[in-house]
Amino acid sequence: MKVSGKSYRTIWLAEDGWSVEIIDQTRLPHELAVMRLLDLGSTCHAIREMHVRGAPLIGATAAYGMCLAVRSDPSDGAIEHAAAALLATRPTAVNLRWAMDEMRAALSSRPTSERVTAAYARAAAIADEDVATCHAIGQHGRRLIEEAWTRAGKSRPVRVLTHCNAGWLATVDWGTALAPVYAAFDAGIPVEVWVDETRPRNQGMLTAWELGQHGVSHTVVADNAGGHLMQRGQVDLVIVGTDRTTARGDVCNKIGTYLKALAAQAAQIPFYVALPGSSIDWGIEDGFMIPIEERAADEVLAIRGRARGDLVTVALAAEGTRAANPAFDVTPAPLVTAFVTERGVTAPAGLRALYGRL
Amino acid sequence: MKVSGKSYRTIWLAEDGWSVEIIDQTRLPHELAVMRLLDLGSTCHAIREMHVRGAPLIGATAAYGMCLAVRSDPSDGAIEHAAAALLATRPTAVNLRWAMDEMRAALSSRPTSERVTAAYARAAAIADEDVATCHAIGQHGRRLIEEAWTRAGKSRPVRVLTHCNAGWLATVDWGTALAPVYAAFDAGIPVEVWVDETRPRNQGMLTAWELGQHGVSHTVVADNAGGHLMQRGQVDLVIVGTDRTTARGDVCNKIGTYLKALAAQAAQIPFYVALPGSSIDWGIEDGFMIPIEERAADEVLAIRGRARGDLVTVALAAEGTRAANPAFDVTPAPLVTAFVTERGVTAPAGLRALYGRL
Repeated sequence: MKVSGKSYRTIWLAEDGWSVEIIDQTRLPHELAVMRLLDLGSTCHAIREMHVRGAPLIGATAAYGMCLAVRSDPSDGAIEHAAAALLATRPTAVNLRWAMDEMRAALSSRPTSERVTAAYARAAAIADEDVATCHAIGQHGRRLIEEAWTRAGKSRPVRVLTHCNAGWLATVDWGTALAPVYAAFDAGIPVEVWVDETRPRNQGMLTAWELGQHGVSHTVVADNAGGHLMQRGQVDLVIVGTDRTTARGDVCNKIGTYLKALAAQAAQIPFYVALPGSSIDWGIEDGFMIPIEERAADEVLAIRGRARGDLVTVALAAEGTRAANPAFDVTPAPLVTAFVTERGVTAPAGLRALYGRL
Repeated sequence: MKVSGKSYRTIWLAEDGWSVEIIDQTRLPHELAVMRLLDLGSTCHAIREMHVRGAPLIGATAAYGMCLAVRSDPSDGAIEHAAAALLATRPTAVNLRWAMDEMRAALSSRPTSERVTAAYARAAAIADEDVATCHAIGQHGRRLIEEAWTRAGKSRPVRVLTHCNAGWLATVDWGTALAPVYAAFDAGIPVEVWVDETRPRNQGMLTAWELGQHGVSHTVVADNAGGHLMQRGQVDLVIVGTDRTTARGDVCNKIGTYLKALAAQAAQIPFYVALPGSSIDWGIEDGFMIPIEERAADEVLAIRGRARGDLVTVALAAEGTRAANPAFDVTPAPLVTAFVTERGVTAPAGLRALYGRL
């Protein structure tokens, strides 16, 4: 998507043809900075410290991390070591595991001399597939926004609420939850987006930034506000992404998603989850089986922002205050109106059929 | 309650016998600073800018604001002007209106020469009554915590989740939602409090601070986390305060309260609202009739914290980002398990009877 009019992806091969460049998302929305990944260690660090985030982008980044690892050592042992190190960076997103499975499958049967070339080819394909997948999600989801517009008599913009960032910054391009918003906007359907700030890491500010760069009208709200907005008829539909969805449709996503799903149900507002097939964990039915990453208390107790041109971290609580920081929650399938996938739109009960997993 | 071992109220008459001192809550939890109110203007400013906050304390502060106004001009016109100015500071809390009605009733029938003395006497009585009321709320609510402890086989602490600050800092002393917690703690019942940070103004950090000063175990969480905690069986009961509750029991409280009430209902956890009778608006049945204060976007887009010993405000969003900031929401009565008042505990349907308003 565009930044100041110039097209970007979130990850790309550098001009040297082997190192990997990413948009450093810890600097956004304050500044657009590019970060270079040179080896397995720097890639693991970038994922763990959330220089890249979002389930699909974590998958693509891990694929390139495997390329960098294979470039320094193409042995079976090195591949297994790299996969284990990358898998350990974030426990919740299933795309990471999917990407590692893909990379291992592409490499294991080849002689070591061909593995570097094969790795870069598969990683590039994973990135390109992600772009195509997200574009398809956008086209399928656009119809849901168009229907809401029709229900409103085309008399006013469609008001979409989203939580966290499941935009192009969370993928290689287009996004998952925001892909339908961009597709609707590009098709001339007026949309306005309520953007949850999404504490503790405020990924909503990334959502606001990318919507703003694309020209989509949006308003940031505290995470606390969404229930009130839905109760008062100020939201037409909710769309979120997911870090992992189970075979029956339980949705693991950024902490706080579940509260919005409850509010949407209470207000009888559609609650959509946009996702690529790679975010579905066919091996799990019950969402409560998904491990929930507990992140550092500091993410709750301190925050970074801009003060007089600098980025400054400020402490929010009295010294010695204890905090807990579960990063994800699970929204049970009955609260999900429909999934928006690259293969089309389906209620939770239809997810297996859509992917031929009956 | 105690701060570093010394007893404080949130508001008191200064040593000069006429000016009013408050704990400046915009400096907490970072530092304990006392602020002096000298006239009507500084009192209105202190309420509007939330140097004092919490419905009961706003009422007591407004009562003292009337004293300061009457001291400079005891005429009927000046009293009406002062009441209007104080009422305009915060539109949602009903205690403010209650306090103004009380003050006008105490002053209107008296000659102007007696009004200053009468005003200070009534304001002091309002403050003392608030302390007695909150103490009674604590004693009634303690039994609910004790029951939860018994249900848990007295084998572990009772885990209470609260939103915003309805502790002693929100009242003159003891608090509303936290009064039962303090009463239980003082009675030797082990309690642990999940403290919602309560964006955008992070009053949860006030809750953490005052619980810490009193020695009550607590953990701060992002507002997004409460649904997850309740879903996973980590919360025994929820207690919040209220800025205004209608005759049928619809609860207007800090934005985000409604989301926690939905989550409590879904997890079948008791959701209690602690309040003095002065927070009940007998003139309204439907909570959606309560005006919801829309505060400045800056409260969402910037935040103040401690950096290298200074208090620094940092910007969280890209420049030019739009935000909305509704300060309160309404939790419909059916989501409330019981009200904890100075007169006892009652389900919403029993509120009128408890106050003889049948």
